Amino acid sequence: MRILVIHGPNLNLLGSRDPAVYGTTTLDEINAELMHRAKARGAILDAMQSNLEGEIVDAIQQGRGRYDALLLNPGGYSHTSVAIRDALDACGIPAVECHLSNIHAREEFRHTSLTAAKSIGLISGFGARSYYLGLDAALAHVEMLRSDEFRQKR
Amino acid sequence: MRILVIHGPNLNLLGSRDPAVYGTTTLDEINAELMHRAKARGAILDAMQSNLEGEIVDAIQQGRGRYDALLLNPGGYSHTSVAIRDALDACGIPAVECHLSNIHAREEFRHTSLTAAKSIGLISGFGARSYYLGLDAALAHVEMLRSDEFRQKR
Amino acid sequence: MRILVIHGPNLNLLGSRDPAVYGTTTLDEINAELMHRAKARGAILDAMQSNLEGEIVDAIQQGRGRYDALLLNPGGYSHTSVAIRDALDACGIPAVECHLSNIHAREEFRHTSLTAAKSIGLISGFGARSYYLGLDAALAHVEMLRSDEFRQKR
Amino acid sequence: MRILVIHGPNLNLLGSRDPAVYGTTTLDEINAELMHRAKARGAILDAMQSNLEGEIVDAIQQGRGRYDALLLNPGGYSHTSVAIRDALDACGIPAVECHLSNIHAREEFRHTSLTAAKSIGLISGFGARSYYLGLDAALAHVEMLRSDEFRQKR
Amino acid sequence: MRILVIHGPNLNLLGSRDPAVYGTTTLDEINAELMHRAKARGAILDAMQSNLEGEIVDAIQQGRGRYDALLLNPGGYSHTSVAIRDALDACGIPAVECHLSNIHAREEFRHTSLTAAKSIGLISGFGARSYYLGLDAALAHVEMLRSDEFRQKR
Amino acid sequence: MRILVIHGPNLNLLGSRDPAVYGTTTLDEINAELMHRAKARGAILDAMQSNLEGEIVDAIQQGRGRYDALLLNPGGYSHTSVAIRDALDACGIPAVECHLSNIHAREEFRHTSLTAAKSIGLISGFGARSYYLGLDAALAHVEMLRSDEFRQKR
Amino acid sequence: MRILVIHGPNLNLLGSRDPAVYGTTTLDEINAELMHRAKARGAILDAMQSNLEGEIVDAIQQGRGRYDALLLNPGGYSHTSVAIRDALDACGIPAVECHLSNIHAREEFRHTSLTAAKSIGLISGFGARSYYLGLDAALAHVEMLRSDEFRQKR
Amino acid sequence: MRILVIHGPNLNLLGSRDPAVYGTTTLDEINAELMHRAKARGAILDAMQSNLEGEIVDAIQQGRGRYDALLLNPGGYSHTSVAIRDALDACGIPAVECHLSNIHAREEFRHTSLTAAKSIGLISGFGARSYYLGLDAALAHVEMLRSDEFRQKR
Amino acid sequence: MRILVIHGPNLNLLGSRDPAVYGTTTLDEINAELMHRAKARGAILDAMQSNLEGEIVDAIQQGRGRYDALLLNPGGYSHTSVAIRDALDACGIPAVECHLSNIHAREEFRHTSLTAAKSIGLISGFGARSYYLGLDAALAHVEMLRSDEFRQKR
Amino acid sequence: MRILVIHGPNLNLLGSRDPAVYGTTTLDEINAELMHRAKARGAILDAMQSNLEGEIVDAIQQGRGRYDALLLNPGGYSHTSVAIRDALDACGIPAVECHLSNIHAREEFRHTSLTAAKSIGLISGFGARSYYLGLDAALAHVEMLRSDEFRQKR
Amino acid sequence: MRILVIHGPNLNLLGSRDPAVYGTTTLDEINAELMHRAKARGAILDAMQSNLEGEIVDAIQQGRGRYDALLLNPGGYSHTSVAIRDALDACGIPAVECHLSNIHAREEFRHTSLTAAKSIGLISGFGARSYYLGLDAALAHVEMLRSDEFRQKR
Amino acid sequence: MRILVIHGPNLNLLGSRDPAVYGTTTLDEINAELMHRAKARGAILDAMQSNLEGEIVDAIQQGRGRYDALLLNPGGYSHTSVAIRDALDACGIPAVECHLSNIHAREEFRHTSLTAAKSIGLISGFGARSYYLGLDAALAHVEMLRSDEFRQKR
Repeated sequence: MRILVIHGPNLNLLGSRDPAVYGTTTLDEINAELMHRAKARGAILDAMQSNLEGEIVDAIQQGRGRYDALLLNPGGYSHTSVAIRDALDACGIPAVECHLSNIHAREEFRHTSLTAAKSIGLISGFGARSYYLGLDAALAHVEMLRSDEFRQKR
Repeated sequence: MRILVIHGPNLNLLGSRDPAVYGTTTLDEINAELMHRAKARGAILDAMQSNLEGEIVDAIQQGRGRYDALLLNPGGYSHTSVAIRDALDACGIPAVECHLSNIHAREEFRHTSLTAAKSIGLISGFGARSYYLGLDAALAHVEMLRSDEFRQKR
Repeated sequence: MRILVIHGPNLNLLGSRDPAVYGTTTLDEINAELMHRAKARGAILDAMQSNLEGEIVDAIQQGRGRYDALLLNPGGYSHTSVAIRDALDACGIPAVECHLSNIHAREEFRHTSLTAAKSIGLISGFGARSYYLGLDAALAHVEMLRSDEFRQKR
Repeated sequence: MRILVIHGPNLNLLGSRDPAVYGTTTLDEINAELMHRAKARGAILDAMQSNLEGEIVDAIQQGRGRYDALLLNPGGYSHTSVAIRDALDACGIPAVECHLSNIHAREEFRHTSLTAAKSIGLISGFGARSYYLGLDAALAHVEMLRSDEFRQKR
Repeated sequence: MRILVIHGPNLNLLGSRDPAVYGTTTLDEINAELMHRAKARGAILDAMQSNLEGEIVDAIQQGRGRYDALLLNPGGYSHTSVAIRDALDACGIPAVECHLSNIHAREEFRHTSLTAAKSIGLISGFGARSYYLGLDAALAHVEMLRSDEFRQKR
Repeated sequence: MRILVIHGPNLNLLGSRDPAVYGTTTLDEINAELMHRAKARGAILDAMQSNLEGEIVDAIQQGRGRYDALLLNPGGYSHTSVAIRDALDACGIPAVECHLSNIHAREEFRHTSLTAAKSIGLISGFGARSYYLGLDAALAHVEMLRSDEFRQKR
Repeated sequence: MRILVIHGPNLNLLGSRDPAVYGTTTLDEINAELMHRAKARGAILDAMQSNLEGEIVDAIQQGRGRYDALLLNPGGYSHTSVAIRDALDACGIPAVECHLSNIHAREEFRHTSLTAAKSIGLISGFGARSYYLGLDAALAHVEMLRSDEFRQKR
Repeated sequence: MRILVIHGPNLNLLGSRDPAVYGTTTLDEINAELMHRAKARGAILDAMQSNLEGEIVDAIQQGRGRYDALLLNPGGYSHTSVAIRDALDACGIPAVECHLSNIHAREEFRHTSLTAAKSIGLISGFGARSYYLGLDAALAHVEMLRSDEFRQKR
Repeated sequence: MRILVIHGPNLNLLGSRDPAVYGTTTLDEINAELMHRAKARGAILDAMQSNLEGEIVDAIQQGRGRYDALLLNPGGYSHTSVAIRDALDACGIPAVECHLSNIHAREEFRHTSLTAAKSIGLISGFGARSYYLGLDAALAHVEMLRSDEFRQKR
Repeated sequence: MRILVIHGPNLNLLGSRDPAVYGTTTLDEINAELMHRAKARGAILDAMQSNLEGEIVDAIQQGRGRYDALLLNPGGYSHTSVAIRDALDACGIPAVECHLSNIHAREEFRHTSLTAAKSIGLISGFGARSYYLGLDAALAHVEMLRSDEFRQKR
Repeated sequence: MRILVIHGPNLNLLGSRDPAVYGTTTLDEINAELMHRAKARGAILDAMQSNLEGEIVDAIQQGRGRYDALLLNPGGYSHTSVAIRDALDACGIPAVECHLSNIHAREEFRHTSLTAAKSIGLISGFGARSYYLGLDAALAHVEMLRSDEFRQKR
Repeated sequence: MRILVIHGPNLNLLGSRDPAVYGTTTLDEINAELMHRAKARGAILDAMQSNLEGEIVDAIQQGRGRYDALLLNPGGYSHTSVAIRDALDACGIPAVECHLSNIHAREEFRHTSLTAAKSIGLISGFGARSYYLGLDAALAHVEMLRSDEFRQKR
């Protein structure tokens, strides 16, 4: 099982800014924790971050055939990007959308997510833990798909 | 640690209708699984279900001082209930909102959640697993609060 | 054939208020007339009224397997209740929505009906007669379904 | 008692297209059934169909003094025609609006009806039966008016 | 003269939560003060609280013929309840709507009140005093009605 | 100088319905008065009425080269007809829009006029007098255009 | 018969700016022409101009009992002034609203008029002539009212 | 204790128009009653009325340091005046907003109040009594502030 | 292969008005060119124009079974006609929607097309060439359908 | 070169309120600084403040022919005043709109400016410095216009 | 003549995904066909694809002076990109917008196109053929421009 | 003091297109002038331009700790980019938003700025001078911050 984590715009700042407020956990530490957890469940996990909408589209496309699921935090692009939504729709890799903050408790333009509509589901508001819960959800989803396929083959 | 699970309107139907589509897992089985998982982590979990908006308000209120966190699936009331939102706001028990289906992939009036704005966060789209992920999130949140308090006391 | 009539909020006042304006027909008399008409067509008809949204959800759920069709006047809940809409959708009992007044000729917030979208159809504006027309529609619908099933079985 | 049935745009196609989906009942057969039912209740029924908004306005106007009630399916004009609404308002013939399909379960622009606001009421979603229920409603309405007039005269 | 006070959802929490912020006045104390003030003006005052929309509808209905006026704080239901609005409209008991907080200074969805439109008037923003001012308004209104009736009888 | 008066849908009913309310002036009498007034100012005036949107488009088109100005009451089509608006724009005959009633004092959907935007101006609310004022405006406009042309030729 | 003409904000600039575009007619000349026309019909006409919303409210109020009708061009206040609308409503002097330009052919925020809803009618788009047509409409309206009163007295 | 009452546009008409409908109480009588009530509670009350938005802004500004509270009926400016809202916000004198009529039961553009958001609270719908209730609310608010200050000083 | 071209309202004016701006190509010349191009590809092409919404509905209906595809320029009706949309939907003849002007570069009410949603596609902005490109698209579509059918039959 | 500074409603309060928050700079000091800066660049600067919308309209009008440019802070009128917008449009004096606070970072109703659309540009958010930057912009604009005129004359 | 084809986000996936649904034509094959058709008409055609909004802006800019026309499929950026719209506007190269699918028959957020407003026109819904029709339109447009220039030069 | 200037999409075209309209000043010349002005005030200024939203996010992030302030013209991304807004919010470098054109005088979708809400302020409409005024504002802001810090340290 292979999982790709895609961190969207501004997530590279995590941990290095306002440690008093946001904690001192960096994106590297989150990625390390995710890899550790994935490995414990027999999966391999890769991670990338980009501030560019189109690079996220590229990453989703290149994931076809190489990854079983995506863990995707599209950041600010969640609310405006038809292109990322279309990439998710076209590639068909199961994706779990994660947000550090609770998007329904922030400005009104963050309440809708164009990209979540083309994901399996959304986890939002639990800080770094949103990613770890998302990894569980993604792995469980892939396992379920495989057992379905297994059952259908028999 | 004590957790209260509140299932909103129509969730009592789970498992007994259209098993081919929705699976055969019943609400009782979900509750049993939740209790089992809670127990394994040293927590006690109670569950209730109601189709009445005001009974959900009652349950949230009565949870004050008795539960450390709520696992709440407000169902159709998520999108319209100012009363449940106010109850969450007034009681201050940390709540995790769970939805079986992905609310951002359904009718437009389901894209916003009045109640999620007063919860820690939202988990939506993973079927019964939304509850199990929500339990993890709730327990981790309570543990974090306790260690904070512990640290502050010293 | 069994039919359940569900009268929503404030319909219990019928007949006892402003008889000069609304006529002297009470809800009991409407129910009696409906039962009489149902009996004449070989059907049994039960009736209930509630001012509580959740009790209407309960009634719809409990009707599964016990009634062939619903005659539903959700009153003011028609325009706001996602929970009743979900109950209709989940239970799958054919429902006919009835309104005493013409909802399109009243305040703008009454022009849309969340619940009618999950019913067979809507009859609105004919006073007590809306119920009698609705009973005809419901019985005819059930008969049609039965003859379809009969045909498919052969 | 005289009733005029007005079928709006595209209703002439009924029965001749996609019989597998829409059934094989034609508009002529609906009209025949309506006439038969009217006759049985001592009423005369005329019918016309037009795809032109203005011809429907003409028909409503010419019905003044000649018909006791209208049975009107304005089709797609229900949602946009101020002119038909004004004709109903100006002529004052009691009208019952009928729709084959459930307009609240279709595209959002079909949820409002400009013309229903100037009718006695609306029946929507019961296929050809919407007309037969509408005829009942129209005849009952006229009878009620007459008995009122009779009572007032005495 | 008899007055019924209806407290809507979450108002039972008053005084027992966050005393530093909301003060230590409980709902019981407000009710006692209201009864005391009513008595001083020769009126009897009953009070009830419910978190259920439908129970508030029930209370309004049962007040017909038994109370001269209502003092109503519909809480979060003010902004969404067509059913309570219809109950006020149908029963015709003069009602004064009270809110502890200033609803025009809070979230935008609290700026409109469906229920106030069917009340005599609205008092909002003065804490517990909103109720006492409301009682004055209600008593004065009933006195005015009585003197009008008295004058008309002569 | 030649003027064409176009009366839109339902204006043929004028005078023959509810004389107590709308007066007894018929459309024929208005046309006669308009012709009389036009003649007195040395102009010829023709009049037509249609309930069909497309016939009004036809009339506007056929007026090119034959009439110096239009007096147009588009009735209910004012608020919805892109086709009449386009005809006015394409033909370039100066038009004065007249309404018997004050469109800004009626239902909200009558407050905007798609067709007035392509007319010289709008006169609304003065009953039959709206037409007579409109004729004055139209004749004065044509005279002004002619004297401009005269001046430019010299 | 006495008429008051109220010119709203910026109308004092008329004639003195961009004479090539707006013509050289000044507000004084319009007032003179209006007085001349009024006199010819046996009426007295006063005129005032103000850039202040409240002074226009003052003028309307002070017109009660002193003028038979108003000729009102509220300029930019037409689209925003609830206060002028209320003054018209409270004072009950018949008013004719005039605009030099065609408000339906300009920016969208000029398409609605709060004040026209409380006037007899609206004349818009004919330059200075809008006032002269408005004077005709106002005088005719007053004459009609007087003959009605005369008739009722007999 | 000093209180300033500010009456907005058109309130000077009170009592002198339509006495059958609005009663015969004039603004002077309301002011006299307010002064009488204020005096009885040991307070001095001044009153002013203006139809000009800016004069109301002036009055609020000049009240700083001279009055302990405002009783403000902004009339039609409630719904549109950012300037009065800013004056209330900038000056910080506690204000109580009063309306004679129930603003939530009138046209939709009267349902929101820009100015109430910067007041302590709103009293709307009780006729002249809205002012008397407002005076009570204002005096009580000032007393509460004073006792708070007193307590803090100790 | 048979193609029907339907030109909507005002398109008959083409070429005869403002030749300096719109060119001198008339609708007849466009039709001739279309017929010439159709013939060259072995197809027969008929053309009609109407200013009446209902006649366009008629034409679409009568095309069933007689034409393989439609070339449709609904003009101003594109943006408002539910009736033409329903006719396209009901008849199922493949249609290509053409517009001379670029509808997305004009007034906002022209940006949506109710009718295009029920066509194969839209070509907009290329003047008369929109029709020629549309003919290519229509012919290619029919050929594709035929080869599909041919393949399926084998 | 002559510049007129117009300060809108509530700006007279500057400096005298909440000096801890807003600083101690008064409007007089800002005006003095502006005059000093203007003088240094060979220009004369006058200043006025008004809380009345209409007086601001007056000031703009009276500036024609007397001032080369305006420095305008319309305060709360920016968002609602069609009259000030029209005055700017009619008088044609180049205007620079200044705001102390950043209007895009405040309540949503402050994000649009009706008046800025008729100014050269907008400077918002820099406190008193917004005026000094605005003066620079205004002087530079006038100099540019003059050199253009100079060049065209040659 | 030189043409640049710009394919926006996700179009690189064409042909390689879901061949049963979308056909097996790849983007390379479409480009080859376009080049072949261009060559046959004496034109040179270059093609690029990018998932990055800014790279599309770059490509449009770099096309100035090098290409006579653009064939542009902005994909998901059509509905949100002000930057691409501005690039089209600034560079002034004639562009034809193409979409494989019929954007008016998909989700509502795809019905408007910010970029089409700055193109010659739009072709949408014909699959790969949308590009071929677009090439025809682009070449014809350039030829027309050249003959215009040729004529003007003479 | 170090300042970073970020020019958004399409600004690289400045000066090289339509020199008759936009002038001949290039972006390089603006940068040179800005550097010259910065140097005169003892500051160092760097500049970059990008058409890619994500590269602007990168530039803002990399500016942390290296620049004291930003001068940012986000061009078309101002109105749509949540990602740039988040970058400004997260990095906390004071930013001044500049626009060459007056965004409030252009298309409606340009009237709001998501990014300005997270800047100190906005300068819009003064051509290249918007940048020079913006530099003044940025330098003054930094100096103010420094003197504040200096004061606090003492």
